[in-house]
Amino acid sequence: MRAARYYARHDIRIEDIAEPVLLPGTVMVQVAWCGICGTDLHEYLDGPIFVPAHGHPQPISHEDAPVTLGHEFSGTITAVGDGVTALHVGENVVIEPYIIGPGVDTGPGHEYQLSPDMNFIGLGGRGGGLSEKVVVEQRWVHPIGDIPLDAAALIEPLAVGHHAWVRSGAVAGDTAVVGGAGPIGLLLAAVLKAQGITVIVSEVSEARKAIAVRTGVADHVLDPTLVDVGAEVRKLTEGRGADVGFECSSVDAVLDMLLETVKPAGVVVNVSIWGHRPAVDMQKLVLKEIDLRGTIAYANDHPATIKLVQDGKVRLEPFITGRIDLGDLIRDGFDALIEHKDTEVKILVHP
Amino acid sequence: MRAARYYARHDIRIEDIAEPVLLPGTVMVQVAWCGICGTDLHEYLDGPIFVPAHGHPQPISHEDAPVTLGHEFSGTITAVGDGVTALHVGENVVIEPYIIGPGVDTGPGHEYQLSPDMNFIGLGGRGGGLSEKVVVEQRWVHPIGDIPLDAAALIEPLAVGHHAWVRSGAVAGDTAVVGGAGPIGLLLAAVLKAQGITVIVSEVSEARKAIAVRTGVADHVLDPTLVDVGAEVRKLTEGRGADVGFECSSVDAVLDMLLETVKPAGVVVNVSIWGHRPAVDMQKLVLKEIDLRGTIAYANDHPATIKLVQDGKVRLEPFITGRIDLGDLIRDGFDALIEHKDTEVKILVHP
Repeated sequence: MRAARYYARHDIRIEDIAEPVLLPGTVMVQVAWCGICGTDLHEYLDGPIFVPAHGHPQPISHEDAPVTLGHEFSGTITAVGDGVTALHVGENVVIEPYIIGPGVDTGPGHEYQLSPDMNFIGLGGRGGGLSEKVVVEQRWVHPIGDIPLDAAALIEPLAVGHHAWVRSGAVAGDTAVVGGAGPIGLLLAAVLKAQGITVIVSEVSEARKAIAVRTGVADHVLDPTLVDVGAEVRKLTEGRGADVGFECSSVDAVLDMLLETVKPAGVVVNVSIWGHRPAVDMQKLVLKEIDLRGTIAYANDHPATIKLVQDGKVRLEPFITGRIDLGDLIRDGFDALIEHKDTEVKILVHP
Repeated sequence: MRAARYYARHDIRIEDIAEPVLLPGTVMVQVAWCGICGTDLHEYLDGPIFVPAHGHPQPISHEDAPVTLGHEFSGTITAVGDGVTALHVGENVVIEPYIIGPGVDTGPGHEYQLSPDMNFIGLGGRGGGLSEKVVVEQRWVHPIGDIPLDAAALIEPLAVGHHAWVRSGAVAGDTAVVGGAGPIGLLLAAVLKAQGITVIVSEVSEARKAIAVRTGVADHVLDPTLVDVGAEVRKLTEGRGADVGFECSSVDAVLDMLLETVKPAGVVVNVSIWGHRPAVDMQKLVLKEIDLRGTIAYANDHPATIKLVQDGKVRLEPFITGRIDLGDLIRDGFDALIEHKDTEVKILVHP
């Protein structure tokens, strides 16, 4: 079968590889659509990061490069292994793409995303969505009912937004500032809107500002190069300041703006992945008793995330800006996202 | 009466000033002892910071420099104003030294420490403990029963430690790492010990390490120049990592050590005041979903803090390293603390 294999930085190859083998407790999924994630771009440009380099096997999957890429995917079950009773052939599903060590409790309330050596299917081994088929342990397979398979490929990054919202503690009626309207910022904003939270998006790119308006996820879009976001947010909140802020840009000035903009005793959730150590204005954190919280991926967020889409509270179609064939992955996928990073949101790949 | 008056950086004068006037709702306190705080040293060396500079009156007190210094003090009530029924002449008290705007709710559960233009008696006006007498609104006066007046002068910084503990959410049986054994780190450690929390102090100064041992506030004292604190703490916690960390040094490497040392989903409370913006390893915060929390001063912490001392759960005497007369404030107080900053903990001044 065809698969996109990560060998090294700037070296991703579309190859023919053997089909994965169905094992007890697993299901075989025929991939319908797989999104390209910012993490994939980082692996391509600056990696390997999550990918285990050749000769350095991942401690849980025991695999090393080359590995199959793709962790944002939907598909249809084509076979079920022994002991699988709750999933059925023909069912449409999405994957919570975890590689988690044996013995880690992945039940409700458990923070399995923080377990040692955690990694992701499609980065750390165990196949990936940028291939025709993938075999996945039943624990990580979530049925999606009648959600279209293309939109469903966005449920994984939407779950990232859902988890960031959970980490924030924000409730209906609160006001949130989302710093940065890239794919994760936009999908997070969609989750916040669905919860009844007022969403203020801060963004400098004209194209991304337009997307935030067009997709309807922002109640207000502010450009920090044109206005004082803190002052504008105070105007919009009767002087109070935002209840929560979300850093989705990995830009020092955006983190600083959020510390400035949230209310006393407010919360700032850091969603972005940083390539450098930002200089943080700790005095704002101290004098306002701000909680600055990290968030990574998701943990038991998929069922609620899928329900948001099933109930029509989040519409994912507007975020799909391209559909390509696996054979065109580098030119029309990776390179397009790098060249047109402000106009593209999510490019889906059909394997 | 005699008072230490802050005029400007490096300009503190012992002067004769008029006694304060008793007003309705206030009490007159004859000061017994007043501690010198790190904040006072900052004002002396680098200020004015909290002190309103001459010509720039504080928005609530409407006072500007010169102002009387001293916010860590105990004393005896010598007169009560009209409308004061719960406080009595002859009662020994400590002051929660707040300057809070009118209309701010200072009742239980209210975060009045975060109210606009908050400042402190002894920094932002309204007299101070480095004078013979001070008149204080009854809301900020806390009876101390039979706690000796010298030890009681340390209740204000102990309340800072109490509030930092409250912000951390740590409970009995938890393990805490305190980064930096200056006066606040030591008093915080004393609060933590009193709550049944295992306390690991990280400190580089030989003198301060010795104080942490001598005062009995640390279960373990680790020197980050001699050992890998993160590895040692994991050994002490069966590989888990610390439940909470407290930054009490305003040193980048200490903050980083705490982010490294707390467990996944752990909490780091920033207690220190920073003169610069540290470079923060956000990736640690993200991948471990750490909560980094600011804490400032106290809010409704004084009653519980006083009770810790009354019940004998915290002994304050070991932290008193000097007793001086107000006339010797600069030489034997400020200059001594600057020159012997590692061996002195708390110098008390008798006005």
